[in-house]
Amino acid sequence: MSDKKQMRIALIGTGFMGRTHSNGYRRVPNFFPELAYEPVLQVVCSRNEAKVKAFAEQWGYASYETDWRKVLQRDDVDAVDICTPNDMHAEIAIAAAEAGKMVLCEKPLARTVAEGLKMVEAIEKAGVKNTVWYNYRRIPAVMLAKQIIDSGKLGKIYHYRANFLQDWTINENLTQGGGNWRMDVDSAGSGVTGDLLAHCIDTAMWLNGSIKDVSAVTETFVKERIHEKTGKMEKVGIDDACIFHCHFENGSLGLFESSRYARGHKALYTLEINGRNASIRWDLHDLNRLEYFDHSDESIVRGWRSIHVTDGDQPYMNKWWVPGLSVGYEHSFVHQVADFLKAVETGSECHPNFRDSLETQRVCEAVIESANTRAWKDTGVETELK
Amino acid sequence: MSDKKQMRIALIGTGFMGRTHSNGYRRVPNFFPELAYEPVLQVVCSRNEAKVKAFAEQWGYASYETDWRKVLQRDDVDAVDICTPNDMHAEIAIAAAEAGKMVLCEKPLARTVAEGLKMVEAIEKAGVKNTVWYNYRRIPAVMLAKQIIDSGKLGKIYHYRANFLQDWTINENLTQGGGNWRMDVDSAGSGVTGDLLAHCIDTAMWLNGSIKDVSAVTETFVKERIHEKTGKMEKVGIDDACIFHCHFENGSLGLFESSRYARGHKALYTLEINGRNASIRWDLHDLNRLEYFDHSDESIVRGWRSIHVTDGDQPYMNKWWVPGLSVGYEHSFVHQVADFLKAVETGSECHPNFRDSLETQRVCEAVIESANTRAWKDTGVETELK
Amino acid sequence: MSDKKQMRIALIGTGFMGRTHSNGYRRVPNFFPELAYEPVLQVVCSRNEAKVKAFAEQWGYASYETDWRKVLQRDDVDAVDICTPNDMHAEIAIAAAEAGKMVLCEKPLARTVAEGLKMVEAIEKAGVKNTVWYNYRRIPAVMLAKQIIDSGKLGKIYHYRANFLQDWTINENLTQGGGNWRMDVDSAGSGVTGDLLAHCIDTAMWLNGSIKDVSAVTETFVKERIHEKTGKMEKVGIDDACIFHCHFENGSLGLFESSRYARGHKALYTLEINGRNASIRWDLHDLNRLEYFDHSDESIVRGWRSIHVTDGDQPYMNKWWVPGLSVGYEHSFVHQVADFLKAVETGSECHPNFRDSLETQRVCEAVIESANTRAWKDTGVETELK
Amino acid sequence: MSDKKQMRIALIGTGFMGRTHSNGYRRVPNFFPELAYEPVLQVVCSRNEAKVKAFAEQWGYASYETDWRKVLQRDDVDAVDICTPNDMHAEIAIAAAEAGKMVLCEKPLARTVAEGLKMVEAIEKAGVKNTVWYNYRRIPAVMLAKQIIDSGKLGKIYHYRANFLQDWTINENLTQGGGNWRMDVDSAGSGVTGDLLAHCIDTAMWLNGSIKDVSAVTETFVKERIHEKTGKMEKVGIDDACIFHCHFENGSLGLFESSRYARGHKALYTLEINGRNASIRWDLHDLNRLEYFDHSDESIVRGWRSIHVTDGDQPYMNKWWVPGLSVGYEHSFVHQVADFLKAVETGSECHPNFRDSLETQRVCEAVIESANTRAWKDTGVETELK
Repeated sequence: MSDKKQMRIALIGTGFMGRTHSNGYRRVPNFFPELAYEPVLQVVCSRNEAKVKAFAEQWGYASYETDWRKVLQRDDVDAVDICTPNDMHAEIAIAAAEAGKMVLCEKPLARTVAEGLKMVEAIEKAGVKNTVWYNYRRIPAVMLAKQIIDSGKLGKIYHYRANFLQDWTINENLTQGGGNWRMDVDSAGSGVTGDLLAHCIDTAMWLNGSIKDVSAVTETFVKERIHEKTGKMEKVGIDDACIFHCHFENGSLGLFESSRYARGHKALYTLEINGRNASIRWDLHDLNRLEYFDHSDESIVRGWRSIHVTDGDQPYMNKWWVPGLSVGYEHSFVHQVADFLKAVETGSECHPNFRDSLETQRVCEAVIESANTRAWKDTGVETELK
Repeated sequence: MSDKKQMRIALIGTGFMGRTHSNGYRRVPNFFPELAYEPVLQVVCSRNEAKVKAFAEQWGYASYETDWRKVLQRDDVDAVDICTPNDMHAEIAIAAAEAGKMVLCEKPLARTVAEGLKMVEAIEKAGVKNTVWYNYRRIPAVMLAKQIIDSGKLGKIYHYRANFLQDWTINENLTQGGGNWRMDVDSAGSGVTGDLLAHCIDTAMWLNGSIKDVSAVTETFVKERIHEKTGKMEKVGIDDACIFHCHFENGSLGLFESSRYARGHKALYTLEINGRNASIRWDLHDLNRLEYFDHSDESIVRGWRSIHVTDGDQPYMNKWWVPGLSVGYEHSFVHQVADFLKAVETGSECHPNFRDSLETQRVCEAVIESANTRAWKDTGVETELK
Repeated sequence: MSDKKQMRIALIGTGFMGRTHSNGYRRVPNFFPELAYEPVLQVVCSRNEAKVKAFAEQWGYASYETDWRKVLQRDDVDAVDICTPNDMHAEIAIAAAEAGKMVLCEKPLARTVAEGLKMVEAIEKAGVKNTVWYNYRRIPAVMLAKQIIDSGKLGKIYHYRANFLQDWTINENLTQGGGNWRMDVDSAGSGVTGDLLAHCIDTAMWLNGSIKDVSAVTETFVKERIHEKTGKMEKVGIDDACIFHCHFENGSLGLFESSRYARGHKALYTLEINGRNASIRWDLHDLNRLEYFDHSDESIVRGWRSIHVTDGDQPYMNKWWVPGLSVGYEHSFVHQVADFLKAVETGSECHPNFRDSLETQRVCEAVIESANTRAWKDTGVETELK
Repeated sequence: MSDKKQMRIALIGTGFMGRTHSNGYRRVPNFFPELAYEPVLQVVCSRNEAKVKAFAEQWGYASYETDWRKVLQRDDVDAVDICTPNDMHAEIAIAAAEAGKMVLCEKPLARTVAEGLKMVEAIEKAGVKNTVWYNYRRIPAVMLAKQIIDSGKLGKIYHYRANFLQDWTINENLTQGGGNWRMDVDSAGSGVTGDLLAHCIDTAMWLNGSIKDVSAVTETFVKERIHEKTGKMEKVGIDDACIFHCHFENGSLGLFESSRYARGHKALYTLEINGRNASIRWDLHDLNRLEYFDHSDESIVRGWRSIHVTDGDQPYMNKWWVPGLSVGYEHSFVHQVADFLKAVETGSECHPNFRDSLETQRVCEAVIESANTRAWKDTGVETELK
């Protein structure tokens, strides 16, 4: 048996994110053997008993619950991982903090800044370790981008741009609410802004500093959809698409776009940053590659480099296979688990934490407000993301 | 000797565009032998006699002038081609129209809508054949995009996006004015908006219909530069970068960006259009390729197609070589010359004409105004581009 | 606790392949919950006790051994998985078969056809379930290629080509033997032919039928290296690079190349097959993508399709995440474990089995002989790979 | 009128190559004004009078002939350009040399080494300036590759590989002979070997030195086709596909493949060279790009660079447009004309000349013989290509 310290996890929610997180917990011990802590899958919680039981069996959770409040009362739980629809984040996170549990919360932190603020206050008052699953930071190529930027190779930054394009909601018969809670504004808070752009904003402010003000436009292409709660056609409250431009604190211009109506794109999260001396590009579809242009290369052989980020000296990659062999989407969650455990071990923060993610929430909210008012909006971001 | 009808050309301006146009005229007879007209390089005009003489010799112009007013008085000229800095477009074009000459004008049509309007009025009053050199329409892959869109393959359009990124002005020592007239707001009218976005807007409105309103931001990264006229540091009046989003008449969202500070990009003009059924992408750097995604393909083998646009049944390509063999940037000008001659032959319009390009000018001006006022701006576009 | 049937695994060898297989076993229950069997990590074996103990702990093996013969004597083992250097494959596999254990053997099956033949005879005499880890077949995009080919979409095949290029041995100071057993001909049997081309040959004969004859050339760029056993400079017996062309039974021409001296390539395993109607390409570096050209597409929009193989109706992908999200290298092993367990459950074969892999061995041996004799060589392949 | 020296050209043959050469001659004066010579399109010759007359008119030839012997007798011709089917090269070239004309000969030099040898002897005896149109050398990206290799950046070379893949003969109804002379072995000498691989071999020996020996395989997929001369089904004598591997003098391994049955490829001429320190790749389909991998780049940002070869300090590119703007296939011919004129002006050789191309012929012949005898074949190459 292992003589490691145990980090006993309670997972709340068994949807897509419940799966990615569970996989993260299970794999860390095999690939990060040096960590002092190992995650223990103590309990999983969901309202549907048959489903939660099957999930517990499939993923090896020691027990299950159908009421999340009971989970918080259990003494055999160290950390609560929230994978519910967005409208439950605040209530559960605050209660978990009050119960003295560490909290890992799926993004976006909340539906609104007001909700998020309460969560941050509760977490900071309780003084519990916390993190938010903006997992894309921990794709090795994205972490390498951070490393390159921090090294100063880019020089003064002029431009940052990102988009997140999908096409899965091009279908009038798709419902809102219930299983499709992402289509329902009450459950989700917003559409692509909170679901997709929140990722882009988190990465952007981590890589390029705070966003000061935004000017946005949103669109809802299908205006009415059957709501699963009422069974009736109801107005769609979410944004199907959102575009905004903005100023960063460092003087660079930002440009962001997201849509679920961009035919041909499944998960096209791309980012690009242009500095005086060098530029970087990345695309989630080919997540092992980072493109890098260095103006200091000799001019006749200067070009965009396609870096296959699989070498041992690149972030996280000494944990996996050998040069040339790819990792996938799910590894970002494994890395976040490992970094969280390391933070617990060393007493440091695991960014993005709730405070960081509140800043991201501020930008999201300013974006929606700017779109609604057809006017520029200050974001009110207070601290730089780490 | 040829028994073709002659189209005697007077070229005004011997800069970069003077070269591309001259090459266009010279090559048409070899590749479009079926045309009734052939261009004759009658006269070239520029203020510097030594330079214009050398240019005439290099390109085979029969004569040269140093005063453009004299050119307009010549009886042996059928068409005037304006390749001067933007601040001379209106005066020359109006005088040429009044002299009964056909007019080919380099883009953008003018510095302002007011200037452009006068030009359109003069041209239409004179009833002379006219065109504006928005040459990118006539890249075979772009013309193929038009053909695909017109065929209805895309279905309802949700998104149109384009950018035009360069990096050549990342240099504080670059001057404004004189040889660098593109950096001087008085000569150029604007920076990237008129120089680069005008191309994107022309193509966009031709492919996707009129733009209704815009919300823009511009930036001038280097605030002062030596002016060649005064020899002193002067405020830079042009936009180094410009981003805007917009609504098209057809309900789709538009997104445009241009910069001369995007390190690593020389002439990255890309466009993408997403429809309900299919999407299209194109990039000037690899101008022979068109990317096409068709949702009606069988799902397991569905993907973006990289079409190498070099087959004989694709636009213009039966004029050139054999399948697989690329054409380049300059061919877009050859095609525009050929289409202009054909229009003269058949008595039809050669789009974009002055009227079309005035609409593009309206969008450019609305963009600049929106950026200056930090507010949405209606474009006032009146007619669909053809 | 699970009520699944247990498949108790004994892993022999704790190197790179020991890790990939262990990961395969651990992940199958989470992603293939429908299987009747679940792997149990019963015992791992390696000569170095400290290392094997640490490995057992990291991967969760219930016990460890340092003598593989003891492993075979244990009653609590159902299947033996051989991850040793190639020179141990035959002895262990034969003994395991005689002990009535199922056998999973890392590729290549053996160093020679003679060795492989004895292994096949032992396995078939014992009648035990067996498979060889030619894992690349089970990359989703490669399995999709198989599916497309089997559907007949390609028509008559004209060409098959594959290469496997690396650059990690461009270093005169690299030793042979010991930890670098792949550099030592006695341990490995051959160089790139058995290590890399064997993969290409397995996939090729599975996709395109048997190879009849071969004409090969090999090269050893660094002729002498320190041998870890003797500590002295010794002649290098392996092939650093190997190229061969061949005839397939179906009349198509084959072309194969492998090298560890191809600067810039880490694991460039590419394959392409050209049929009368359609063609397919794949590259391990971007393993989620399959390129497909279909001549029956309408000519003006015909092009190579870049298929991002992440949709639920593509092979294996309904087990993982959502469309657009990538899997990685390691997933091929998870799939092979799942398919092996399924084969045990249903009483079918898990290809490639020992018999299939003996045919691959024949081609490898013919390749080496052809290179040594500078003459064409018949392969003697007897049965089509499944 | 120009005060340049005149180089009066006689073009023999008005097919595809007649067009590319004519375009080359016409464009040089506009883009290479510094040259002392300018080409004059004096006479074009072809057997069909209607066709040759139309060609002369389209391209601006001053006169035409229908008998090539008459052309050689004319005093107003300085240079003879041979664009006929391959079976006429030797006779015309030898007669032209004897008539004291400079000779520009389309590739391949001849059908056989014997023919080529006579041509070289005649040319060298006459002492006339000569060149062979292996135009791909003069694609800017390929010339840049040469420059990089000559700089020593690659270090010791391990591998050279090239292929030239097309698909236009996948059609049983295609005839041989007449207009389809490339399908007829008597007219063409060979199939893909002389038509396509000859290009690859010329570039390869120019970039990487002489090829010593070869081992080849050829295939004729369609065994019989109607012959245009007889109107009957006749055996097809050409190779539809050819693959060979080889040793270069410098110790590197070579690999070449060509086919006209590679569905999906129109003109896929790719080359790659792997050195100890760096590697280079190029693809005719995207001819403005050169890919370059430099192992001396800092490891975490090392990757293949995609160089868009359009900057003024890259070969030939200061003659054309501005950075980022592409040139096409035809420019390679313009460059060869310019280099030929420069060679005449300076009294130097314009490589590849007849002597160089005889060496390429030796390799082609060895390849065919190796394929026919199923044995390695020495090439007998005597001198390094320049």
